[in-house]
Amino acid sequence: MTIRYPNGNQFYEQPASSNDHNDTINFSNRGMTLEDEINKSNSYYLRNEIAVIHKKPTPIQIVSVDYPKRSAARIKEAYFRKASTTDYNGVYHGYYIDFDAKETKNKTSFPLKNFHKHQVEHMRQCLKQQGICFAIIKFVNDQSVFVLRASTLITYWDRQATGGRKSIPRSVIEKRGFPIHYRINPLLPYLSAVDLMID
Amino acid sequence: MTIRYPNGNQFYEQPASSNDHNDTINFSNRGMTLEDEINKSNSYYLRNEIAVIHKKPTPIQIVSVDYPKRSAARIKEAYFRKASTTDYNGVYHGYYIDFDAKETKNKTSFPLKNFHKHQVEHMRQCLKQQGICFAIIKFVNDQSVFVLRASTLITYWDRQATGGRKSIPRSVIEKRGFPIHYRINPLLPYLSAVDLMID
Repeated sequence: MTIRYPNGNQFYEQPASSNDHNDTINFSNRGMTLEDEINKSNSYYLRNEIAVIHKKPTPIQIVSVDYPKRSAARIKEAYFRKASTTDYNGVYHGYYIDFDAKETKNKTSFPLKNFHKHQVEHMRQCLKQQGICFAIIKFVNDQSVFVLRASTLITYWDRQATGGRKSIPRSVIEKRGFPIHYRINPLLPYLSAVDLMID
Repeated sequence: MTIRYPNGNQFYEQPASSNDHNDTINFSNRGMTLEDEINKSNSYYLRNEIAVIHKKPTPIQIVSVDYPKRSAARIKEAYFRKASTTDYNGVYHGYYIDFDAKETKNKTSFPLKNFHKHQVEHMRQCLKQQGICFAIIKFVNDQSVFVLRASTLITYWDRQATGGRKSIPRSVIEKRGFPIHYRINPLLPYLSAVDLMID
């Protein structure tokens, strides 16, 4: 069955770590969500000892649980909660990595409403601790993907409050972000953008 | 109602960030789990911009969800999953911090069965990426708490496979670990041990 988040996005389990030889680029990738693509890339980075980056579990508010004899505890009632942090974090060459991944059907800009206030606050806090923070943004229209520094995102986020626009123009993302081109392995080599950010 | 994990431990929600003035040491702390104590300490570190460290949400396998009209999506059937990583991670002064917290009723040793294989593997992976990895171990008997380097834990873990003991003697934890003494704020100042590990 298809499970959906309250925002309508489809819920996917973390994929089991897949076999390298199956990680080929083909049109079937076009059916993958950005989350799938990043999980797949993280599996590659993990298997090859390049980085340890995981998606955090979806936060759930548990209301009621059954404890049947001789079988696993069963959650009978629970609700999705809003995440208070970004979805992904981990470690790469001693650097703390922290990011969120968002896709948009918009063609010319990225709407800031894709982020929650708590997520942006979390990025601000991580930056103060010298973490490497960013967003991975995908324009599904033409399958282009960019890494955008958290500092750029925060600048636009804060400007909203004083009458600024509610989105980041694609032209800004192209100019200030780092384009990520699909490859075979990893599917989305976003750590190459991190290397540039560290330099 | 009281909600329990499959292992019988009580399930607690992440506490709302509490007021500094209420963080006093008193006998009521004796009713807190180690998880409560660490969450409280992390809230203090976060509020005071010392570190950004969060507990990861409990991983859940969702089986069935209801989407009632005009109200929140309701999870009708789900199960607890084993975590594939440690429970806590974050960033402190540019360092990647990663740890798990375990308490034991044993008095003279810490049983290794408190850890899952995946958690130990995760620590191994993080160490290779130059993360700061450790376990916070509490002997509930006399309320003593220690930070133990992941490398020490891994040494004992690996020895099990070749006939070694299934626990770490308390004497070893006292000698090679860092004792953490309860304070007012933060309740468990475990980052002071991290400072020593970084030195």
